[in-house]
Amino acid sequence: MNNPTLKEIAAQLGISITTVSKSLKGYSDVSEKTKKAVIELAQKLHYTPNSFAVNLRTKESKTIGLIIPTLVHDFFSNVIRGILEEAEKRDYLVIILQSNEKLEFEKKQIDLLLNKRVDGILMSLSNETGDFEHLKSIIAHNTPLVLFDKIAKLVSCSKVTINDKKAAYDAVSYLIKRGYKKIAHFRGSYLPQNAIDRFLGYKKALEDNGIPYDSSLVFVCDNNTDFEDGYENAKKVIDEHPEIDAIFAVTDLVAIGIIKYFNETGISIPKQIAVLGFSNWFMSSVISPKLSTIDQPGFEIGRRSASILFDEINLKKKNLPVIFQSIELETSIIEREST
Amino acid sequence: MNNPTLKEIAAQLGISITTVSKSLKGYSDVSEKTKKAVIELAQKLHYTPNSFAVNLRTKESKTIGLIIPTLVHDFFSNVIRGILEEAEKRDYLVIILQSNEKLEFEKKQIDLLLNKRVDGILMSLSNETGDFEHLKSIIAHNTPLVLFDKIAKLVSCSKVTINDKKAAYDAVSYLIKRGYKKIAHFRGSYLPQNAIDRFLGYKKALEDNGIPYDSSLVFVCDNNTDFEDGYENAKKVIDEHPEIDAIFAVTDLVAIGIIKYFNETGISIPKQIAVLGFSNWFMSSVISPKLSTIDQPGFEIGRRSASILFDEINLKKKNLPVIFQSIELETSIIEREST
Repeated sequence: MNNPTLKEIAAQLGISITTVSKSLKGYSDVSEKTKKAVIELAQKLHYTPNSFAVNLRTKESKTIGLIIPTLVHDFFSNVIRGILEEAEKRDYLVIILQSNEKLEFEKKQIDLLLNKRVDGILMSLSNETGDFEHLKSIIAHNTPLVLFDKIAKLVSCSKVTINDKKAAYDAVSYLIKRGYKKIAHFRGSYLPQNAIDRFLGYKKALEDNGIPYDSSLVFVCDNNTDFEDGYENAKKVIDEHPEIDAIFAVTDLVAIGIIKYFNETGISIPKQIAVLGFSNWFMSSVISPKLSTIDQPGFEIGRRSASILFDEINLKKKNLPVIFQSIELETSIIEREST
Repeated sequence: MNNPTLKEIAAQLGISITTVSKSLKGYSDVSEKTKKAVIELAQKLHYTPNSFAVNLRTKESKTIGLIIPTLVHDFFSNVIRGILEEAEKRDYLVIILQSNEKLEFEKKQIDLLLNKRVDGILMSLSNETGDFEHLKSIIAHNTPLVLFDKIAKLVSCSKVTINDKKAAYDAVSYLIKRGYKKIAHFRGSYLPQNAIDRFLGYKKALEDNGIPYDSSLVFVCDNNTDFEDGYENAKKVIDEHPEIDAIFAVTDLVAIGIIKYFNETGISIPKQIAVLGFSNWFMSSVISPKLSTIDQPGFEIGRRSASILFDEINLKKKNLPVIFQSIELETSIIEREST
């Protein structure tokens, strides 16, 4: 059986299509008896209103798009959970796309979503994304856009982030207060704003505490395989700078790669070298030694981003002006066994 | 600026709407010069065809729906990755919904997807799903449905699973071969077919190896918080049956909860008690001791499920008959340090 039409329901009951339509919408000029008959038959036939036709009239798709770099990632999974929770409340659906950290995919996916006439778009940018023309096409379409986590500072839209620079500054200051002096940084790739900011926070914390910044202690993790990046760079730092006493890693997954290498080679954590992560993935609390890290509130970032997007969609519907917001959520240091 | 219409493009170029439409569709009875002018202006104005109107004509939404129990889960993240990869190839979009293991949500989400006229639906059922009327409404709508992982055997549609019973049977036989004799099972909740099958595989392996089945060695993990379930039941099994020498856990996350409790209380793994997981989550390879487990190919399950769904969508489009498939993917035992 295919989706039945109003016409079929009308034919089966021997009434007009208009009466069927009015009954389903609950109009008062149709008798209760007729309404009941229509609704019962519609249910029996599994009738659903044609949402394409409805959408064409209301110009609303009740759908938003989400583009994230990668799915198999504790942080983004939590972000999505927050977004779905907000969408659920409003009977909105979420189309999820994964850019795989590729600018080219991101561009194509924006086109797909705009073609689909989604009511709004949420995005965290890929590591490759250094120009932002494709984001401007979203704005040119008058489609609300909210960026989160990996954002473009210069694109005019709402943004939800943490203060990466401050979080990193606090993290490294904490290490220094615990007595560590020779602190390496395993940074993220060069384009994403959050990797830049975490690096700047590291550098400033050293300088403010009278420790000279040494660029040879900074290792770049840019193969999009955080775990292996951490493992390989751990090997490298021990070869080149065996004198270090701590490492501040750009993500927990990098830190877990470091821990794996140190565990295998008998380097004692934190006795010989302390390790501090960033993000507070679930697995950080179950590995050995348990990883100290920065709590990055993924669920809340998702929830807030979606909530702002829905507000902007509603304002647009009412032709009211939108004032863009930049929200910075709080982070905190979680002290475990690795520092 | 809002989405420009064909009318606006026609007005700006001083040509007819028909000519604009023909140009954009590449018809040969429009001059190359006109076509070029139309396409350039359309690009400049960020024109996109109204997909609602296109959909109304073609009756295709180029969108599929996916309902999974939970997102923050290594296995399902990998499934989604497989699904997105197949959808990407075909320019299909995927609406992702999370049932939170609740039947009520699952029902509502099916209604939302059917209302949206998705071209097909992929589902892994919630732990609460014991009756399947809501799945029948998908079939009554003539919307292709593929179930994977947590399926309903009696619903007539294609299915992609592993052979959970065989995988569990092999796992427990492996433990017995390694000399373990007093093997507890931390099983999943009572409704999901995969939890039932893993339990049956455990039972049969004991029986086939002449070890009497003892129901007091089976602990149920049904709080949808696998990690805590594993931790709490580990405490319980040590109180009630300190004589056990191995535990076969229904998921890696349950196993990691067990390992945490044993590490904290100084129970040596695998010397005193061996632990075997199920699923091969990434974190299983980085915890200490590294967890032996069953490799469950999430990415491949997602890829195959999506590929079958797209085949069925195409057959339906051509009014060709669909023959449902039940695919069982191979699993293997990954031996690490915990057994």
